[in-house]
Amino acid sequence: MKTALGIDFGGTFVKVGLVNEKGLLLKKFQFSTKSANTLDKWIMKIDEILGEIKNEKDQLAGIGVGVPGFTDFQRGFVYGLPNVKGWRNIPLAKLLKQKFNLPIYVDNDANAMAAGEYRFGAGKGLKYAIFVTLGTGVGGALLVDGKIYRGAYSMAGEIGHIPITFEGIKTPEGIAGLETFVGNQRIVERVLKEIKKGRKTSITQLINGKLNQITPKVIAEAAKAGDKLAIETFDFMAECLAIAFAGLIYTLQPEAIIIGGGMAESGQVLFSPFKKHLKMRLSSLFYKRVKILKAKLGTDAGIIGSASLVFYEKTSMN
Amino acid sequence: MKTALGIDFGGTFVKVGLVNEKGLLLKKFQFSTKSANTLDKWIMKIDEILGEIKNEKDQLAGIGVGVPGFTDFQRGFVYGLPNVKGWRNIPLAKLLKQKFNLPIYVDNDANAMAAGEYRFGAGKGLKYAIFVTLGTGVGGALLVDGKIYRGAYSMAGEIGHIPITFEGIKTPEGIAGLETFVGNQRIVERVLKEIKKGRKTSITQLINGKLNQITPKVIAEAAKAGDKLAIETFDFMAECLAIAFAGLIYTLQPEAIIIGGGMAESGQVLFSPFKKHLKMRLSSLFYKRVKILKAKLGTDAGIIGSASLVFYEKTSMN
Repeated sequence: MKTALGIDFGGTFVKVGLVNEKGLLLKKFQFSTKSANTLDKWIMKIDEILGEIKNEKDQLAGIGVGVPGFTDFQRGFVYGLPNVKGWRNIPLAKLLKQKFNLPIYVDNDANAMAAGEYRFGAGKGLKYAIFVTLGTGVGGALLVDGKIYRGAYSMAGEIGHIPITFEGIKTPEGIAGLETFVGNQRIVERVLKEIKKGRKTSITQLINGKLNQITPKVIAEAAKAGDKLAIETFDFMAECLAIAFAGLIYTLQPEAIIIGGGMAESGQVLFSPFKKHLKMRLSSLFYKRVKILKAKLGTDAGIIGSASLVFYEKTSMN
Repeated sequence: MKTALGIDFGGTFVKVGLVNEKGLLLKKFQFSTKSANTLDKWIMKIDEILGEIKNEKDQLAGIGVGVPGFTDFQRGFVYGLPNVKGWRNIPLAKLLKQKFNLPIYVDNDANAMAAGEYRFGAGKGLKYAIFVTLGTGVGGALLVDGKIYRGAYSMAGEIGHIPITFEGIKTPEGIAGLETFVGNQRIVERVLKEIKKGRKTSITQLINGKLNQITPKVIAEAAKAGDKLAIETFDFMAECLAIAFAGLIYTLQPEAIIIGGGMAESGQVLFSPFKKHLKMRLSSLFYKRVKILKAKLGTDAGIIGSASLVFYEKTSMN
């Protein structure tokens, strides 16, 4: 059976895996993003990993890379990675192809994860879906007619930057983008602000008063136990998501929304208010026709998804 | 040359035209929506019109209907028309086919108009575009890979209902939808409110103090002459549109936005602030790749577009 190398390029770790055509992760490697802080070092690390799997090289169909930023998938071109220094305007697919002489696919990390979910996870068999990954940032990808939707210039699906209101935080991507409301850090900041105002919450007990230990996971735990502030926080997050997704559903009418990323692990404390707000913001003609699903591939979604690009996607250069 | 009958079903008038394959309107008829207030009467009126063009019947390839409401294009099914009483859950294509024995296409009016613009107007040659019509309501349609995008259940493209903020007017379609901010009547109400507060504006002179004569056209005229309230009103409208469209551009990355409907005739007093707000809400990677165009087919867009469905679209029943 054919295999592909999937590279999940994160802000902290670069995770690499050998994945077969059925989406099974056969071997896994990782190195810290800091340890490979130049393009040459990064390529060397990948070269080392390829050395470690040299016995399996005959089956290797190519390399897929998911990167955290704007990319042109057709050319495998990286415009820039907001959270990784020095990666600007890099023809990554071209460079890797020259070095390794293999088909190379470079995509936005959310697109890569979505590609994995559609082939091997929660999106199997769907033709129209919207994938969102909730974590430090908010990534997205669209499935249209059974394929990852690319748009006119191969950068579509950036749902984390959808503005959800008039006023808000300004970023290079605009004003009041979804991500500036529901990114992990924003949610933690919201809770911290209330605690500092003197609001009582069981969250402080869960972290023994160490405020720097508040995470979305802790807030979810408190919400499950009935903590009012934690429940309110998830309700606000759900409302922000529903504003963006009501618009997406009216525009695209997908069969399903697939929610992945760390925040999706919060479960019903997020999904239940999300459905409530979505229902309030949609005609029943639309609401009743859309499924809300949790992503299935878990922490290896990025690796498996990046590898799946090799098996299932096409670009002009490969 | 083949022809098609295009029917533009509006809240006030039903406009009908014989259109050839090049998008040329050969003959035009109309009757008042009130005069055909039952389905039977409506079909009779169409029958009469077909009688008047009976000499051209050999060339007639079919009938296309654009209706102001939710439709299932595949089945030619009308779910409901908010502004026309009595039209709920009607299998219109099926009924017309039984009566006239011709291929029948029934679509949302904005989709029909967009289909016309893509084939014969501002969208000619494009593969990815978003069409919006600004009038009493806000209609929309998407061009994906050179075809009108339908979504999973044939109702996609309803961009008038995209929520653009947290709080707002509630409708059966949700909360704070784009249309509830920028529909013609909302814009007029905004101006009236300011005038009643005592705000000075040249608009009152343009209408000789008759406040019930304020229209978007009058406001546009005042804005062109430098009236501050009128300019502010268009700036607000442009900001609302930019919130919705920044999200659409991040999601779909189209080549162009095509703006039609009566409000598009305002020209630069609308287009210029729209571009300004869009630029503020988009990464330059996206902003610089999207064109903002004015629709070209004018008042006959609905007839020509509905007819174009017959020439260029496919459904399961035709």
